[in-house]
Amino acid sequence: MTLEQIHEDELVRRLTANLTAGSEVVLGPGDDCAAVECGSRKWLRLLKTDCLIEGVHFSPDTDPMRIGWKAMARTVSDIAACGGKPGHALVTLAASAEQRLAKIEGIYAGLKRAAAEFGVTIVGGETARAPQGVFISVATDGRVRRSRLATRSGGLPGDVLFVTGKLGGSIHGKHLDFYPRLLEAAWLTRRYDIHAMMDLSDGLGTDLPRMADASGVGFALTVDALPVTDGATVGNAISDGEDYELLFAVDPAAAEDLETRWRRKFPYVPLSRIGNLTDAASGRTPLASGFSYFLDCKTGTISS
Amino acid sequence: MTLEQIHEDELVRRLTANLTAGSEVVLGPGDDCAAVECGSRKWLRLLKTDCLIEGVHFSPDTDPMRIGWKAMARTVSDIAACGGKPGHALVTLAASAEQRLAKIEGIYAGLKRAAAEFGVTIVGGETARAPQGVFISVATDGRVRRSRLATRSGGLPGDVLFVTGKLGGSIHGKHLDFYPRLLEAAWLTRRYDIHAMMDLSDGLGTDLPRMADASGVGFALTVDALPVTDGATVGNAISDGEDYELLFAVDPAAAEDLETRWRRKFPYVPLSRIGNLTDAASGRTPLASGFSYFLDCKTGTISS
Repeated sequence: MTLEQIHEDELVRRLTANLTAGSEVVLGPGDDCAAVECGSRKWLRLLKTDCLIEGVHFSPDTDPMRIGWKAMARTVSDIAACGGKPGHALVTLAASAEQRLAKIEGIYAGLKRAAAEFGVTIVGGETARAPQGVFISVATDGRVRRSRLATRSGGLPGDVLFVTGKLGGSIHGKHLDFYPRLLEAAWLTRRYDIHAMMDLSDGLGTDLPRMADASGVGFALTVDALPVTDGATVGNAISDGEDYELLFAVDPAAAEDLETRWRRKFPYVPLSRIGNLTDAASGRTPLASGFSYFLDCKTGTISS
Repeated sequence: MTLEQIHEDELVRRLTANLTAGSEVVLGPGDDCAAVECGSRKWLRLLKTDCLIEGVHFSPDTDPMRIGWKAMARTVSDIAACGGKPGHALVTLAASAEQRLAKIEGIYAGLKRAAAEFGVTIVGGETARAPQGVFISVATDGRVRRSRLATRSGGLPGDVLFVTGKLGGSIHGKHLDFYPRLLEAAWLTRRYDIHAMMDLSDGLGTDLPRMADASGVGFALTVDALPVTDGATVGNAISDGEDYELLFAVDPAAAEDLETRWRRKFPYVPLSRIGNLTDAASGRTPLASGFSYFLDCKTGTISS
């Protein structure tokens, strides 16, 4: 059996099965970040790593600055989705011998620019030779107040689902230049009891079922309510991925107040109510083929 | 200019120039680990990342278990060299679609075995598709008592240089199966004022000049005293790399007591006194071509 015959989620489940962790691991594999005790009653430490590979996540002629920015911004987006604030980063940069130094320096300049923008301190890392292409991995730590830790697993039936920004069409540029929702996530977790939250990296059609799965609930999605990027389709909004927007679930009693205050606080960032979490019994989604399932539905409410 | 035209140390210097770090970064780029404040008077947090690439650090037919063990043990060795104890690890595993699942599971089994052996908790990571081969990056955190942090930069002229174990010939197997000097380093930093310490990953001929450089001193090496692996040559001991032994510098007044107690505590681990640190003025090594420089010296004392 080869890797192309197994779904990524299933692979991760197999690899991380039987991992033993003590009680000091508050959040283990399967969420946006890991969260561990750090000897403080108030704070938890967040840990996240993320990689970008030439030929997979960017092409050989992508602007190096934007590659670097993206590599750093991706981990920041995950730390944000947990309600945290990033701290330090280690950068692994592997490249083949024929790569131009200017390209590597450009990638590093992008990493530094994003680090400065989001308050991350690059404290080390390494360079290595690769047989081909360029590989960048960024490991970032952060911290979150224990009371504000947002996970994928706390969603409850009846919760209102919100999504920030617009979805779809990221490939036309946003996937390189996105601005992680750090401020927005901090505001949300400070002011509201966010039952579940994650950043949308693989597309709503993949990520929403993951959140519902982690929470042990189902969901109903109002496709008409999806905030679609100008020029993109509903299909793009569901399937494209790399939106790096926040998907979160809150108690219906808080939803209206949250919407009102959001518009005052972040007038230029769309916030859309896109559906609800439901009883698991009312239908857990058989979304192994999530994309196509969603793509067949052009409108209306899906109970899945 | 391409990467093959620049020395790795020079590349790292260029990339990490102008990195801004606050006072909470105790140890930044250039040492075995980064060390940062963690809100404790007693403890510092250590951060380390390290990668293994198929075709560079192992071959396609290397036993997957051993690849995984090595990937984890390398970061443990760096944490040990700083006097610390490893805590959590995030594992990035990128592989091409045609890789066998059994191989990836084997690598992960090796990672888990080493993690269990050295008290590391794997708390997450990611899998990704690569255009070819296998790429593994492990990001590990740890902690060290502030008073016991060992760096590369504290060496003083006159310090005695010690090295653990035997050097050279690692390629015949040790580079995959080595056992990081975690206990030994903890004992050393608990009992002695270790002025400078690092793990030997690129070979004494490269790493000793790095330590001297970081400490702003020179060194004199007694080549006859080098502990050479059975079947290897002095040249191997200086140049091969991947020894994962400890190199450290202590005050001469402490050296004899340290040797005596070491033999009682670790009777099966050789400890060799291989030279001294010297005044920078007595000769900083022009070791851009460190390997060949060393290889020309078959015996005797090198003041470099």
